Amino acid sequence: MGRWEPNARGRLADAALKLYAEQGFDRTTVAEIAASVGVTERTFFRHFTDKREVLFYGAEAALELVTRAVAEAPESASPMVAVSGALQAFGAFFQEDPRRARDRDAVVSASAELRERELVKLDAFSLAMAGALRERGVEPRTATLAAEAGAAAFKIAYAEWMAIGRSGEKDRELPGLFLEVLAELTSVLDATRD
Amino acid sequence: MGRWEPNARGRLADAALKLYAEQGFDRTTVAEIAASVGVTERTFFRHFTDKREVLFYGAEAALELVTRAVAEAPESASPMVAVSGALQAFGAFFQEDPRRARDRDAVVSASAELRERELVKLDAFSLAMAGALRERGVEPRTATLAAEAGAAAFKIAYAEWMAIGRSGEKDRELPGLFLEVLAELTSVLDATRD
Repeated sequence: MGRWEPNARGRLADAALKLYAEQGFDRTTVAEIAASVGVTERTFFRHFTDKREVLFYGAEAALELVTRAVAEAPESASPMVAVSGALQAFGAFFQEDPRRARDRDAVVSASAELRERELVKLDAFSLAMAGALRERGVEPRTATLAAEAGAAAFKIAYAEWMAIGRSGEKDRELPGLFLEVLAELTSVLDATRD
Repeated sequence: MGRWEPNARGRLADAALKLYAEQGFDRTTVAEIAASVGVTERTFFRHFTDKREVLFYGAEAALELVTRAVAEAPESASPMVAVSGALQAFGAFFQEDPRRARDRDAVVSASAELRERELVKLDAFSLAMAGALRERGVEPRTATLAAEAGAAAFKIAYAEWMAIGRSGEKDRELPGLFLEVLAELTSVLDATRD
């Protein structure tokens, strides 16, 4: 990063998100994004490979956060408890800036291509958590099941959190909502024998 | 379909799968596929929009099968029981021709792009099952949870079934393997309170 561009990456990401939300993802050019924060297109491309990548800014850091949380869960924690703790931390990460999360979500939801990209990203989180569980000595199948169950509950809690934000209802905290959905998932599965 | 091409669609799909497996997906051309069953490229494109679509041949029929199974589950069935029954039927669909399923899987697994496509397809199954449950009067969150839990268990059972097929171990039936994985998912979630 050049010394005349302090935090250019973060400022470019914010500006891009704002433009995508205002005028649509497809209609926003890299030139506009760069101009809106006073840098050149070349600077943009030093930070992001393309327009789409801006939307997944922070994903690597979040993936590392979640993986580390699974790895560092207390030795006595069951696989599901380790995953649950990690995903509560992930929820807290979004909860820090709900407005930004919602602006971003509106852009992603409006495009089939971006929704697919999001699905693939969520799968990467599930794979990373399963890997961290196996490192803890958990059987492969159990590791994958705990990670997938956590990811499914998180996906649903996240969608509800977004819907609540749009509806103007009293706000909910994402980590708590996630725990509630996970508990309901447990009940739904318990009814397998009905 | 012209009268000189009885079941051209099925024959094209079989021939394509064989060529993909033998020489790789990327190195196989539509011209080769068409020639190998004695039709023109134009005939190929009357049945499939592209080379990739051949791999997802039958997906619409399977989606319909699964959705109908959820809709037609006994009234007394819990959401999870309805989903479980539908996915056992889905497993039986693959079990009819394990060799074909494995040839196809080898091709899909070898390509990041095709693996992403597969993930998106599985999500479509989950969405369809959740929709069918809502039609039965199930609450939206419960419907999505049951569908996602079933899809997660199916994905894992399917991957294990593929691995068993490659390893030459004694074969397992996919529907039974799915039930076993679903039962383990229930136990994994029950340990949330440990």
